[in-house]
Amino acid sequence: MVKKVLKFGGTSVGTTERIRHVANIIQKESSLGSKIIVVVSAMSGKTNELIKLSKEISNEFNKRELDVLLSSGEQVTCALLAGALIKLSIKAKSMLSWQIPIITKGEHTNARIINMHVEKINKCLDNGEVIIIPGFQGISKNGDVTTIGRGGSDATAVAIAKIFNADSCEIYTDVDGVFSTDPNKIPVAKKIDKISYDEMLELSSLGAKVMQSSAVQTAMMYDIPLEVRSTFTERKGTKIFSQENIDYTKSVTGVAYSKDEAKITVIGVEDRPGIAANIFELLSKAQINVDMVIQNISSDQKTTDITFTVKRDDVSKTKQILKNNKDIKYVAIIQNDKVAKISIVGAGMVSTPGVTYRMFRALSDENINILAISTSEIKLSVIIEEKYTLKAIKKLHTIFDLD
Amino acid sequence: MVKKVLKFGGTSVGTTERIRHVANIIQKESSLGSKIIVVVSAMSGKTNELIKLSKEISNEFNKRELDVLLSSGEQVTCALLAGALIKLSIKAKSMLSWQIPIITKGEHTNARIINMHVEKINKCLDNGEVIIIPGFQGISKNGDVTTIGRGGSDATAVAIAKIFNADSCEIYTDVDGVFSTDPNKIPVAKKIDKISYDEMLELSSLGAKVMQSSAVQTAMMYDIPLEVRSTFTERKGTKIFSQENIDYTKSVTGVAYSKDEAKITVIGVEDRPGIAANIFELLSKAQINVDMVIQNISSDQKTTDITFTVKRDDVSKTKQILKNNKDIKYVAIIQNDKVAKISIVGAGMVSTPGVTYRMFRALSDENINILAISTSEIKLSVIIEEKYTLKAIKKLHTIFDLD
Repeated sequence: MVKKVLKFGGTSVGTTERIRHVANIIQKESSLGSKIIVVVSAMSGKTNELIKLSKEISNEFNKRELDVLLSSGEQVTCALLAGALIKLSIKAKSMLSWQIPIITKGEHTNARIINMHVEKINKCLDNGEVIIIPGFQGISKNGDVTTIGRGGSDATAVAIAKIFNADSCEIYTDVDGVFSTDPNKIPVAKKIDKISYDEMLELSSLGAKVMQSSAVQTAMMYDIPLEVRSTFTERKGTKIFSQENIDYTKSVTGVAYSKDEAKITVIGVEDRPGIAANIFELLSKAQINVDMVIQNISSDQKTTDITFTVKRDDVSKTKQILKNNKDIKYVAIIQNDKVAKISIVGAGMVSTPGVTYRMFRALSDENINILAISTSEIKLSVIIEEKYTLKAIKKLHTIFDLD
Repeated sequence: MVKKVLKFGGTSVGTTERIRHVANIIQKESSLGSKIIVVVSAMSGKTNELIKLSKEISNEFNKRELDVLLSSGEQVTCALLAGALIKLSIKAKSMLSWQIPIITKGEHTNARIINMHVEKINKCLDNGEVIIIPGFQGISKNGDVTTIGRGGSDATAVAIAKIFNADSCEIYTDVDGVFSTDPNKIPVAKKIDKISYDEMLELSSLGAKVMQSSAVQTAMMYDIPLEVRSTFTERKGTKIFSQENIDYTKSVTGVAYSKDEAKITVIGVEDRPGIAANIFELLSKAQINVDMVIQNISSDQKTTDITFTVKRDDVSKTKQILKNNKDIKYVAIIQNDKVAKISIVGAGMVSTPGVTYRMFRALSDENINILAISTSEIKLSVIIEEKYTLKAIKKLHTIFDLD
């Protein structure tokens, strides 16, 4: 018998009307004879509402109690959806994290699922019951409520699919699937039918926020087939699985962008071995993530300029750290936070020559200056002036046959 | 060391500002060196909001899931209050029903607390921690979430006071205490300083909804001293304890009223033994609570008229049952749902002659007709036309020296 995990996000269960609609989707799946475990998020807006309440109490609200507070959101959805299914004469039952239990490890508000007891749920599934489980939460070994970070319901769904050895894990959301680029910005964006875990990871970490990255990583690690699809249409979604099962006809799968970037140039740094390492070690210790790095050849053999990109939120912290450190000598710091990162992603890139050249030529044709470059096996990213973002995406989308 | 249970109702924790205020009250108590267990209700309006959501799904929402849904309300308050206390540098911790656990018995939405594990909480108390517990809920022996009925947070507080052998149980609410009559209607109503469990029970079942009746019953059974007091003033509240500890200077302690009543007269019922029993057995089986009964002496020796009172909500059901039963023959049914029940309550009544006479005379002086009467050891109730309610309360309040 097919075993499925279905996960419904916040907008999918945002109102009682939508919850009734979700119950209909589950009814259809259940009538096909599948064993079904459902994972739900809090109703959209609910988690933010609870966070707001906590901030009214304290800006540094105790994390143990924050977990108790936030976990109530998914509990509400669980009960409402179970009630909606029972109303449709389906045997259904909510099972909260402590009832299963789902065991987590790590600090409050940022724990991770390490184990899950299967006996109770398997018994219910064998008995023909649909089980509804709250995403995003668990309990620690000593019985405290824990949560696993924003978007954690995806991680719960994938962990359940893994532990119960499910045949598939379907992520229901408010979009039709994963697109070749942002469909809100570029109307010719196309839904991707099949995509590999790696590509999905590159796209999601680059701003296509369809699924939480760590959940995709877990699915990749255990080879759990995923499908991202819409709660609101009956269209097929995007299937995500391992690269070897995909036949690539195109070199580039999608174009992603991010406007969170800022470029920092440190001018006149002493040009000796280890100086760049010193800088980046300092930033790393301060939890600042450096993305791309360019070091120019020094003209006078004594000093050099180092350019790198960080998240915009980290710019002032970065400058402060460089200023405060006496060991790193430099002439000036220049910042530019009006930049964007544009990336082409595709598992087919590695076997197609000339992708890099075609990208650079296309941008040059549009008079767009490239400020920094970084590459990986399946991704090529450039930093450009923010104002050219849309122009660049459109051009790349067209020349790589994605329209 | 003094051990106290403090219970805060829905209006006391209705906003985050009020929750911070409650944290201040607890801080004051804690600084006196007491061991403190706090029981909280859901924020005011929250439970109704959740019930509304369930009704949008189904008017007969599954009760197991309703318990999962509703129990989230108190969980939110627990976390917020614990967070507010920690912000004040007080060691505090929420403990949910399944973490303690609080064991209940009986059907969903109407369970009752039968046991509670004390080890974890005692350890925390010994460690100087303030423990915050959600009222109104528990878990069943097989680990399902249960709730114990509306107003059940009072019952939770009293059960905890009993099991932990607390020195007192303070019920914080939005009124100053128990009044001699409804202070919103009768401005000369006076706060009662001390009242017996029995009187409190008669008053609360008659509409002075300061505390849930079954909680007062439990307190009486185990002789747990209660105090009802306001969260919003520093005034002393009303102390509730056993009758023998109260010195009665007045025969009547309070005047209560209820507008939930309806009077039904069945005319021309066959006058033979057992006929009244037949009627009331039928109604009892249908969960209809009959309050007062008057059976007139029959004029023709063959038929009689039976008058009784029921809750207004039960009137149509009552009529239906009588109509559908072929064994009970009668001529007609007359209903009057524009009636009110006025009661004088006082443990001193039994030792004061003439109270009944004085009550009847007072009402007669105001030209108020008495439609039915019932009496107990410490209570005397009459049914009158609803329009005379205020007039009757005022008069009785005055003649029994309560102003």
